[in-house]
Amino acid sequence: MLMNVPAELFEKLLEGDRVALARSITLVESKRPEDYLAKQELIELCSGKKTSSVRIGISGLPGAGKSTFIEQLGLYLVRSGLRVAVLAVDPSSERTGGSILGDKTRMEVLATEENAYIRPSPNSGILGGVAEMTREAIIVCEAAGYDVVLVETVGVGQSEFGVHSMTDFFLILTISGAGDVLQGIKRGIMEMTDAVVVNKADGDRIDAARIAASDIKSALRLSTGGSVTPKIPVMTLSSLSQDGFDDVWKMIQEHVELARTTGAFDVRRSNQMNSWFENAVQFLLRSRLENDEKLTELRDRLLEDIEMGRVHPIAGANSYVDALTGEASD
Amino acid sequence: MLMNVPAELFEKLLEGDRVALARSITLVESKRPEDYLAKQELIELCSGKKTSSVRIGISGLPGAGKSTFIEQLGLYLVRSGLRVAVLAVDPSSERTGGSILGDKTRMEVLATEENAYIRPSPNSGILGGVAEMTREAIIVCEAAGYDVVLVETVGVGQSEFGVHSMTDFFLILTISGAGDVLQGIKRGIMEMTDAVVVNKADGDRIDAARIAASDIKSALRLSTGGSVTPKIPVMTLSSLSQDGFDDVWKMIQEHVELARTTGAFDVRRSNQMNSWFENAVQFLLRSRLENDEKLTELRDRLLEDIEMGRVHPIAGANSYVDALTGEASD
Repeated sequence: MLMNVPAELFEKLLEGDRVALARSITLVESKRPEDYLAKQELIELCSGKKTSSVRIGISGLPGAGKSTFIEQLGLYLVRSGLRVAVLAVDPSSERTGGSILGDKTRMEVLATEENAYIRPSPNSGILGGVAEMTREAIIVCEAAGYDVVLVETVGVGQSEFGVHSMTDFFLILTISGAGDVLQGIKRGIMEMTDAVVVNKADGDRIDAARIAASDIKSALRLSTGGSVTPKIPVMTLSSLSQDGFDDVWKMIQEHVELARTTGAFDVRRSNQMNSWFENAVQFLLRSRLENDEKLTELRDRLLEDIEMGRVHPIAGANSYVDALTGEASD
Repeated sequence: MLMNVPAELFEKLLEGDRVALARSITLVESKRPEDYLAKQELIELCSGKKTSSVRIGISGLPGAGKSTFIEQLGLYLVRSGLRVAVLAVDPSSERTGGSILGDKTRMEVLATEENAYIRPSPNSGILGGVAEMTREAIIVCEAAGYDVVLVETVGVGQSEFGVHSMTDFFLILTISGAGDVLQGIKRGIMEMTDAVVVNKADGDRIDAARIAASDIKSALRLSTGGSVTPKIPVMTLSSLSQDGFDDVWKMIQEHVELARTTGAFDVRRSNQMNSWFENAVQFLLRSRLENDEKLTELRDRLLEDIEMGRVHPIAGANSYVDALTGEASD
């Protein structure tokens, strides 16, 4: 086995070595204290490399057809001569191991493309921060020469905020259907959305998709008080017939080019540094707690006391946090 | 304004005072250091009160009709002579303020019932722990004499694990429809589910709902390898026509009574103490970070350095965590 020497990994990354890429991502996702320094060095090396990549966040409820959409978009981009990396942020991946159906066919075609790289969901843990190390994985993929990084997340809730905070373009995928499409798109989410795509606009669902798109446009107008026509594009698309990927990619490119011209692109990336810091703090803190022997012992003892009814969970938590922050000895 | 004296609040809680109830929940949700002691005292007082309440977690994707279901179930229970509290865990409540549509009509009828109490979502913050103080709010409601506590969460992901870890019965609400119902029910979620209810089985959707229910049953068999018939009940229901709440409540009662007889009920509650401890640790830690002047100053300085490109976010996070855990002075 190769050593995790950051300079070596970085050199191989630049050469397009896929094994080095996989190993680099594993390194930046590592929670082992002995990996901290190597990890930090590798990330700083990768961060130093200038790239013109585009990071696209894609979110949607289960059933919206995210996998098929991403695979087709990925294939479209690869055929356009671009190198594409796909990262997934799944808030519940560790315990679920994916949905009951469908994992077997997950992006099988795209996975065989030489210019595509698909990284499965990290095991972030159920209470762990969402997308903890996805940001670092993006940086690594970019250093490895990928032009487009697609970051997928299951919507509802926190994970969208996480993915928005690390991408240049945030797209919501939805479908027409029985449930209320609009209810799936919360106001705070809409405010950070760059485009909405109504998927599965095929066969006898084309009309329903168009109606859904028009409903979403109305809702967007409503949410701005009706005074302004919102600039968020709402499109329909069929991942099945591969219709519309031209338009989707054109829309993304235009958005990114305009943002680059106005400087909004750099401002957005610079603002994202704050949430990178916050995520890194959470990650480091959790890693340190898990690896500190004294704290682990204290935790085990407290949990036993709590189970036996000798200590209330709240009181136990207080003692633990005191020990962690060194308050007890003050 | 009344003081937040725990003993006084507790006394008024026991008398059924709604103002005291609202204030108590606000106290247990507080992040202000000056509230820590009062909060802990109130929670311990409430924990000490023996009750025979039942905690029911209800999860489902947006559009599944959770609000209507909970309102109708709540009304059914109130009419059966029970006192019902409704708490909501919304992972993205702070920034969204609810969905675009529908908030105006949220449980309006139930809200006017004397024996019902509806608590809006706490402002847990987007990166904050899901359901941080919901557990404490449950305890407070129980001390206030509520027989049934309904805890609602939007599915997908972390929040379900949170809600499962604080309830006696976990129910998933779903609907028949365009999206793949099964994809919405991840394996890890299914493993902790006590029942699945296919909602909106009304009008011309009755057949579709029955088919969906049968699909879910098959998937459950599939997920156990086909060898065992899973004991998770799958029912159809119409919240609109109020059909089926008898059956739902009967099912929950039977489950709870059996669990009480076998001891499984107490085991489950005792196991939940662990996650209560974990949640409390997260909450306390975050509160302390936000309220520590030195750490706040360091954070601001680091964020400025990061923005100016003088410090990498990862390196900044390292310094911050060092300061927090007192490593720097070691």
